[in-house]
Amino acid sequence: MTWATIATWQMAYGGVGKAAEILRKQGAAADALEELIKTVEADPAYTSVGYGGLPNDQGVVECDAAFMDGDTLAQGAVAGIRGVMHAVSVARALSRQHVNSFLVGEGASNFAREQGLSVPSMLTQQAESTWRERKDQVDRGLITPYDGHDTVGALTLSGSGSMAAATSTSGLFMKRPGRIGDSALSGSGYYVDSEVGGAAATGLGEDIMKGCLSYEIVRQMAEGASPQEACDRAVYPFIAKLRRRYGKAGACSLIALDNRGRWGVASNVEFTFCIASSDHAPQVMLANPAPRGSTLFEPVGDGRD
Amino acid sequence: MTWATIATWQMAYGGVGKAAEILRKQGAAADALEELIKTVEADPAYTSVGYGGLPNDQGVVECDAAFMDGDTLAQGAVAGIRGVMHAVSVARALSRQHVNSFLVGEGASNFAREQGLSVPSMLTQQAESTWRERKDQVDRGLITPYDGHDTVGALTLSGSGSMAAATSTSGLFMKRPGRIGDSALSGSGYYVDSEVGGAAATGLGEDIMKGCLSYEIVRQMAEGASPQEACDRAVYPFIAKLRRRYGKAGACSLIALDNRGRWGVASNVEFTFCIASSDHAPQVMLANPAPRGSTLFEPVGDGRD
Repeated sequence: MTWATIATWQMAYGGVGKAAEILRKQGAAADALEELIKTVEADPAYTSVGYGGLPNDQGVVECDAAFMDGDTLAQGAVAGIRGVMHAVSVARALSRQHVNSFLVGEGASNFAREQGLSVPSMLTQQAESTWRERKDQVDRGLITPYDGHDTVGALTLSGSGSMAAATSTSGLFMKRPGRIGDSALSGSGYYVDSEVGGAAATGLGEDIMKGCLSYEIVRQMAEGASPQEACDRAVYPFIAKLRRRYGKAGACSLIALDNRGRWGVASNVEFTFCIASSDHAPQVMLANPAPRGSTLFEPVGDGRD
Repeated sequence: MTWATIATWQMAYGGVGKAAEILRKQGAAADALEELIKTVEADPAYTSVGYGGLPNDQGVVECDAAFMDGDTLAQGAVAGIRGVMHAVSVARALSRQHVNSFLVGEGASNFAREQGLSVPSMLTQQAESTWRERKDQVDRGLITPYDGHDTVGALTLSGSGSMAAATSTSGLFMKRPGRIGDSALSGSGYYVDSEVGGAAATGLGEDIMKGCLSYEIVRQMAEGASPQEACDRAVYPFIAKLRRRYGKAGACSLIALDNRGRWGVASNVEFTFCIASSDHAPQVMLANPAPRGSTLFEPVGDGRD
């Protein structure tokens, strides 16, 4: 029984370990995935996801998240949600509804409150202090405001062949209130089909959504590409196209997993990610873009570095 | 010099006429498109777009819109925006920004106010009266709440070869506050690449976004399919897949236009749309799904029926 999981960034290491435990015990892909993302959301040390996430330019933490069931293609998403630690759980709850399954802003926050999923405050003292310091520098024109857009995106494959995809982020640091990126958007931030595989993204959402990169990777896998071939063929030509047509391209990092447990990654910046499978203990990996539209990887310790 | 435009629903007839005038006089694809959508948004007779749009289940009109420049791939979008007649103009303004280009909820409404694009009220007496009547029936369990999700989506091709795509909608009637559909989502509600063509969608957004149908149509055109082949190949297999995997499929109607001015449509329900080009006066058309994954069309008068 092959099971596997992959997630963006080293910060997902603890969550990947928990998901691996669930998958090893024949747990569901969706349950393992929600636990993975919740682990990252709950940790205030990670300043770009969930509790402790850096706030928008008004000092308010607003989060985006999505959840997709690869068996049914059901999707749920929230964007610009406030006062919710586990935005991924709200997204999963919404994925069980046929309509009203993507909620934004106050409507999303109110839905979470009704579901008992809200918390008194998402802003930690540390995040507020970083915000105050940075706001002063931004106001004085010393730095550009945008930073810290490291979404946790993850994919799981259970031994029974089910797959799921999810994302969660507090978005761009110092973003405008109401700004959303790719994380909550089907086909851009995430996509999964248990008959093929899945993909998820992190980086500058405004650029990732111009290429629908997660959908494109899954589509390439459906045509027979391996996850690595699909990532390389989707991401690097798009980056080149965006530079040519739009004049620039922000960070775009994509992960993929197919329904045989094979994984792939492509990124135009240095990028860490975590993997675990029935054949491999949880491991942090480092990816870098390489010549001729390919990607180089190496293991980087046990995630506690 | 070939120019062309296509838009969803008969309600776009007046706007298509205005866009055709602009394109005929060598106007820009983006300018013609904004004028097309604004014409529909401003007309209170159309209860699913802009002013006069039907409200959510709290009696508040919330709109979604997007704008994409096919030359640069620049995108702007708003969702769950209140108090704005021309959501498409807000989306176009946002498409000029590299970051913070997709705003939702209160943040979107505040941005529109700063840009001088807000209006005192979007709720007409007629829409409010329909809402009161329907709310009573919904509360008594006599009808299901969702209806009137007829997005205006449109594509333009200018004589100089530039293309643009845009959408605007007040979304599902009686939706939950904050509910958004596919219209504002890249690749689902809209997509355009001037080197290939564009596509736009109307129907049940929750299902359209499960298939990233606009992106898929443009991709098929990039591989050499005609707009009609691309629509048929993207839409009907997806509907069948969704029925098999999810158990049901809502209305999905897609339009496409390529950079030679050829158009295509596919829909799993009866669906009207409007076309105009350097070879053809503005015309309302009727589409219906036909056997073996194809689509039938016929002209239906001059739009004043």
